[in-house]
Amino acid sequence: MKDTQHLYGAILAGGSGTRLWPISRELYPKQLLKLLGDKTLIQQTFARLKKLIPVENLYIVTNEKFATDIFLQLKSYGLVRENILIEPSQRNTAPAIGFAAAKIHKRDPEATLLLCPSDHIVKPAAAFARDVEAAYPHAKKGKIVTFGIVPRQPSTEYGYIQPKSRSKGVVAVQAFHEKPDAITAENYINDGYFWNSGIFMMRTATILQEINQYLPKLDKALTLLDTTRPFAHFEKKYDALPADSIDEAILEKSDKVSVIAATFNWQDLGSWRVLHELTSKDKKGNALNEHAIELACENSLIYGTNNRVVAAIGMCDAIIVDTEDAVLVAHRDETHQIKDVFNQLKAAGKSQHLEHRTSFRPWGSYTILEEGPNYKVKKLVVNPGAKLSLQMHHKRSEHWIVTRGTAKATVDRDTRYLDQHHSVDIPVGAKHRLENPANTPLEIIEVQNGEYLGEDDIVRFEDKYDR
Amino acid sequence: MKDTQHLYGAILAGGSGTRLWPISRELYPKQLLKLLGDKTLIQQTFARLKKLIPVENLYIVTNEKFATDIFLQLKSYGLVRENILIEPSQRNTAPAIGFAAAKIHKRDPEATLLLCPSDHIVKPAAAFARDVEAAYPHAKKGKIVTFGIVPRQPSTEYGYIQPKSRSKGVVAVQAFHEKPDAITAENYINDGYFWNSGIFMMRTATILQEINQYLPKLDKALTLLDTTRPFAHFEKKYDALPADSIDEAILEKSDKVSVIAATFNWQDLGSWRVLHELTSKDKKGNALNEHAIELACENSLIYGTNNRVVAAIGMCDAIIVDTEDAVLVAHRDETHQIKDVFNQLKAAGKSQHLEHRTSFRPWGSYTILEEGPNYKVKKLVVNPGAKLSLQMHHKRSEHWIVTRGTAKATVDRDTRYLDQHHSVDIPVGAKHRLENPANTPLEIIEVQNGEYLGEDDIVRFEDKYDR
Repeated sequence: MKDTQHLYGAILAGGSGTRLWPISRELYPKQLLKLLGDKTLIQQTFARLKKLIPVENLYIVTNEKFATDIFLQLKSYGLVRENILIEPSQRNTAPAIGFAAAKIHKRDPEATLLLCPSDHIVKPAAAFARDVEAAYPHAKKGKIVTFGIVPRQPSTEYGYIQPKSRSKGVVAVQAFHEKPDAITAENYINDGYFWNSGIFMMRTATILQEINQYLPKLDKALTLLDTTRPFAHFEKKYDALPADSIDEAILEKSDKVSVIAATFNWQDLGSWRVLHELTSKDKKGNALNEHAIELACENSLIYGTNNRVVAAIGMCDAIIVDTEDAVLVAHRDETHQIKDVFNQLKAAGKSQHLEHRTSFRPWGSYTILEEGPNYKVKKLVVNPGAKLSLQMHHKRSEHWIVTRGTAKATVDRDTRYLDQHHSVDIPVGAKHRLENPANTPLEIIEVQNGEYLGEDDIVRFEDKYDR
Repeated sequence: MKDTQHLYGAILAGGSGTRLWPISRELYPKQLLKLLGDKTLIQQTFARLKKLIPVENLYIVTNEKFATDIFLQLKSYGLVRENILIEPSQRNTAPAIGFAAAKIHKRDPEATLLLCPSDHIVKPAAAFARDVEAAYPHAKKGKIVTFGIVPRQPSTEYGYIQPKSRSKGVVAVQAFHEKPDAITAENYINDGYFWNSGIFMMRTATILQEINQYLPKLDKALTLLDTTRPFAHFEKKYDALPADSIDEAILEKSDKVSVIAATFNWQDLGSWRVLHELTSKDKKGNALNEHAIELACENSLIYGTNNRVVAAIGMCDAIIVDTEDAVLVAHRDETHQIKDVFNQLKAAGKSQHLEHRTSFRPWGSYTILEEGPNYKVKKLVVNPGAKLSLQMHHKRSEHWIVTRGTAKATVDRDTRYLDQHHSVDIPVGAKHRLENPANTPLEIIEVQNGEYLGEDDIVRFEDKYDR
């Protein structure tokens, strides 16, 4: 694309993924997962935008919970750390988009902004680029251009966009419609309606003007915002804003909204059912991975996990997903009830809705192997050359045993190199640091002891990753 | 019962449990499991016989793999260690029963022997006692008295016994019949046939005489056997014996076989389907445990496991059984295919068919938390007052960290007491011993390092449990 100096992109990545539990978790939603292919959904989205838009103009709008994981995933794609915009709290899309638009507008009053969800499949990239290019001049002229998907079937799972006419190109929007029933959906298709992809594009000046007209509270907040500082400083005022969605609060009201018929393929991976549909299957319609054993099953998705076995016998239309600490067994048509499972786990004080046993960090990853009263056992994998922060814990002692590679361990003034099987004690209150000085991965078993073992009992003195 | 001086019992406990995988494993079959109630099936069986027969007259016939676990389970019931008869190899029931009968006959030529499978449910104990009492005089007079179960339905899953007449009491047997088809089963019931419970009773002199008549090879082997020594000395000759079942080789041929109509309830827990039928269920027909979450399910068995969650949505007639390292999801009518899963796991070199992550030992238990190249992480739970053997490993070093309680650790000539968080190294080749000197459980994390980490790399110098 030419003339991209004033073109900006913002990826909306604040959604939490209940619908693909147990592989998505409250702290690890579907945009962070490799669902189809070897890149995560947010990596796919970022790579797609990067082909059109200068990387320094690309923003992520998310919240505190996901910011570190997103940066870890997109660092190598060139994401600028300051371009991760963190909502002070979750107040739906209108405040998030308003804040992002205000921030970018301050930087460049001529900005045109392309907004994309982080967790959709859009292919091929060339078709997407062509459509954005076609929409761009209209956006520059003051339109809010939405991307409409030509329906593949009368789906009851998506919202619809009704164009004013059946002309080609960019046309004005007559109305937006919520998820319809089956008969209505059929009519919508016959009348040439589009699915609403959630992708849209406009000048920051345009959206701020519409916010001024339709969302006075948000507008007032934006005038008080200091866009040179992290949004966190605005927490109290942000919390007080109504939780409006951009669709209902602006797109359905504004007379500037247009739609372009997308030429790309689009999929919202909103349920296990959809994922099963999009995955390659055997002759019996089963999607399996290498940890699954299947006998006499049909039309089922069966995913196992490392170090475990999932065996399915005689199941039809089943979704079976096994993870390190939870397994889901559901009929394909009933996966919408996962939300209830999520809520039951939350109410019972479990952790399986919240996070995985394995968490990723800038230096590698850790897996919780075992927890009990006053102790926790973790396996740490430290990447070659990586080092954890120089840190201290008030309430726990730690004990490290190397099981692979070589560790450089610092405990107060003592630094030593530990090979496989060697161990070191870290008393409560000792300043310590773990490094991998070698060019092969380092694995250690960490046994923590103490009355309180939360991740937040950590004082960081120095951190390669600026945490 | 009176006059029990010459009454003996033998529990046949050599069967391996594929059909209740994943809770039963090749090394931990169903007789060792608590399937219904708070005692394992073999404990229930032993307790039932102990009410009728002097405990020093009770024998277990099993193989090397299960002997330790069986002794652990029955020690507190008074089982005499020497009364565990270990088959040199698995050669079906005729050789096993022949050896046991020969051993007991040598001890007491007047012996009458009651033979029972180890993994059936028999209730109430009083009815069982009454039936045994009724059969006893007939056995003493030279009959082989089988216990027939009055069929509850025309089952195709059991063998049938055809009595010569419909008279009450102990009557001669006309014939034995294999598992029939449904129509034949219906006819069998109308003709007054019984299910074959696998329980029978006769003088050791009687069965040895029938072996002499019908199984010449076994008979010859028995004449050469030194019954004062463990059967292991006879391994080569035992291996060469034909793998005959006692039913086919003797009961179906002998003219001394009678049947008594049992007044007890009898269940062979031969499949998940049967277990589901016998378990208490909610109004929707679901049998659940506390680790299961169920939404919109019907007629299903859903068992979760500690530290994990199993969530089932919209499933009907499903068997869902989750364990530490494997999960089964099967239609109730298809669980006979579990054997194929078992074989696939075996062929793939996995461990999930063979054993659980947690194993029991005389001193407590251990759980494998993590395994990798050249290392293994275990959690050990040592009972109050218990001690592991004084031992040494040729190929691995070990590292112990106490996470609960107090350990007494001996490494070569050094003995020390370790509280929570304290650790000790055990180099390759060091004589070492772990004890729990306290009256609360001891828990330690053991990290093993070495090129070979098999359980058989152990040299025992001294063992409280005579291993």
